[in-house]
Amino acid sequence: MTWTPPRYPLLIVISGPAGVGKDSVLRRMKELGYPFHFVVTATDRPPRPGEVHGVDYFFLSTEEFLRLEREGELLEHAVVYGEHKGVPKQQVRDAFASGKDVIMRVDVQGAATIRRLAPEAVLIFLTAESKDELVRRLKGRGTETPEQLAERVGKIEWEMSRMQEFDYVVVNREGELDRTVAQIAAIVEAEHCRVHPRRVQL
Amino acid sequence: MTWTPPRYPLLIVISGPAGVGKDSVLRRMKELGYPFHFVVTATDRPPRPGEVHGVDYFFLSTEEFLRLEREGELLEHAVVYGEHKGVPKQQVRDAFASGKDVIMRVDVQGAATIRRLAPEAVLIFLTAESKDELVRRLKGRGTETPEQLAERVGKIEWEMSRMQEFDYVVVNREGELDRTVAQIAAIVEAEHCRVHPRRVQL
Repeated sequence: MTWTPPRYPLLIVISGPAGVGKDSVLRRMKELGYPFHFVVTATDRPPRPGEVHGVDYFFLSTEEFLRLEREGELLEHAVVYGEHKGVPKQQVRDAFASGKDVIMRVDVQGAATIRRLAPEAVLIFLTAESKDELVRRLKGRGTETPEQLAERVGKIEWEMSRMQEFDYVVVNREGELDRTVAQIAAIVEAEHCRVHPRRVQL
Repeated sequence: MTWTPPRYPLLIVISGPAGVGKDSVLRRMKELGYPFHFVVTATDRPPRPGEVHGVDYFFLSTEEFLRLEREGELLEHAVVYGEHKGVPKQQVRDAFASGKDVIMRVDVQGAATIRRLAPEAVLIFLTAESKDELVRRLKGRGTETPEQLAERVGKIEWEMSRMQEFDYVVVNREGELDRTVAQIAAIVEAEHCRVHPRRVQL
């Protein structure tokens, strides 16, 4: 007779269109001390001044990176401006072994890959109030060239159309970051109460 | 293009074995001002001194009660010690029309009925740390005759075995009522974030 149900660590994936605030949400959750393992991405680009291995990124040689990719040891990977980026599975396994939920951000395309490799992941789609608001945020952060900006705006409709493949949607309203974070925390708490829990196997 | 997903009111059903604390949980949620409609049960027994129609119960004549039952207008009903008790559907429809989530308690048998009549209801199973703890609570409340107590204890194993048919399970630990309430609130919040929301139709 089961009295208290088993507790399996979760893989929580935060995705959504460019500019919606994925990084801000994760940064805020870290600040607030949520007891998750926050995924560190691996890359083959050299560290910039001040960047710490294992904190900002795992800095690998291109050869090491390609070996992980070849061996199916990456949960998600992409080539961004000629640099490799990806999430080593071992990191997630290690966090699971210590009982920790794992949380990561990924673009909408990458979320589809994770769904395929880890069907039991909890996929959360972040959205904004409107397309106008999203474009405003993208322009506001000023990190893109006009060409990159145009490319990202051009992808918004397609990205929004993928929402249906996610488990949850959270509206990250302007100025309400803590509300967004609380909703994500509620989703994690509820998932741990499921009678038929998700169990990710990597 | 959907930006912010539709919000449908939920039917939240709190169930679990006798003595687990269903009434205490709902009472505490009321005290804390959760914006739910708390279901009022209909009965054909006469009001006791101080009981208010529409607050403690809806007091109906046996004839009125049986008419609702006959017309399929009860979400759940039972005969308890020769008195009829049941939940009128119209009350739930009215609360839904005003946009409110509806929350109710029901025994484990009744939860199965609700699952059949409203498959999209959110079914939450309350449990305790152990069977011993549950028996201790049942004895402690002192509201049952020894025969009733024996009957309730005898049903615990069967009630626990129905957990698998619920959506969520929450452990109502001794002295941690507010933690239980917060978990239920998290479940409700998460359910409102589902990309494919539940939509109860009565």
